[in-house]
Amino acid sequence: MTNATPPHPIHDLDEVVHQRTRLGILAILREADQVEFGYVRDALQLTDGNLSRHLRTLEEAAYIVIRKGYHGRRPRTWLTLTKSGRRALDRELASLRALVDRLDPEKGSRS
Amino acid sequence: MTNATPPHPIHDLDEVVHQRTRLGILAILREADQVEFGYVRDALQLTDGNLSRHLRTLEEAAYIVIRKGYHGRRPRTWLTLTKSGRRALDRELASLRALVDRLDPEKGSRS
Repeated sequence: MTNATPPHPIHDLDEVVHQRTRLGILAILREADQVEFGYVRDALQLTDGNLSRHLRTLEEAAYIVIRKGYHGRRPRTWLTLTKSGRRALDRELASLRALVDRLDPEKGSRS
Repeated sequence: MTNATPPHPIHDLDEVVHQRTRLGILAILREADQVEFGYVRDALQLTDGNLSRHLRTLEEAAYIVIRKGYHGRRPRTWLTLTKSGRRALDRELASLRALVDRLDPEKGSRS
């Protein structure tokens, strides 16, 4: 029984959000109401396939909504962060900040 | 050609170090010269198998050294962070701090 020991801060990290590419996707989606697939792909320097795979993981977690549509006659895929996705990203950022402050307290107080 | 666009900050994250469990392992190892396998396992609430798997990844990256030995007659496994592992962890913390500050600037300026 180690009830006295609080869980290590890494347990506050959600792997769905913490994974590097998905963290980047959510960060980009937070800055606009909806973002086009190609914009995210280029900003993160991903292949279509790699981005699609991570989008599916985020969609399954209900963190994003994926909408297909047209811009003129060109097919387009639009991505939107859900409220739940925004909350998950906020939690991750708070956890990362706590982790970094704990591990690297000196740099935190610089400047 | 998009040479003008700097790579997204997620590209500074090293997946070997960024992965949640491995980040926790490196963080623990940074706090002592050597740490016993069981201590890390319990602190991070992992199974032996799961911890071993992540240790192998870190050892292959030359971020840790794994030494087998005895404490009295009991076999023990000792883990040590290498210089390269320490540098990788420091880079990760700096990248996380930059990412969090960029995504969440208001909270950063709070006390």
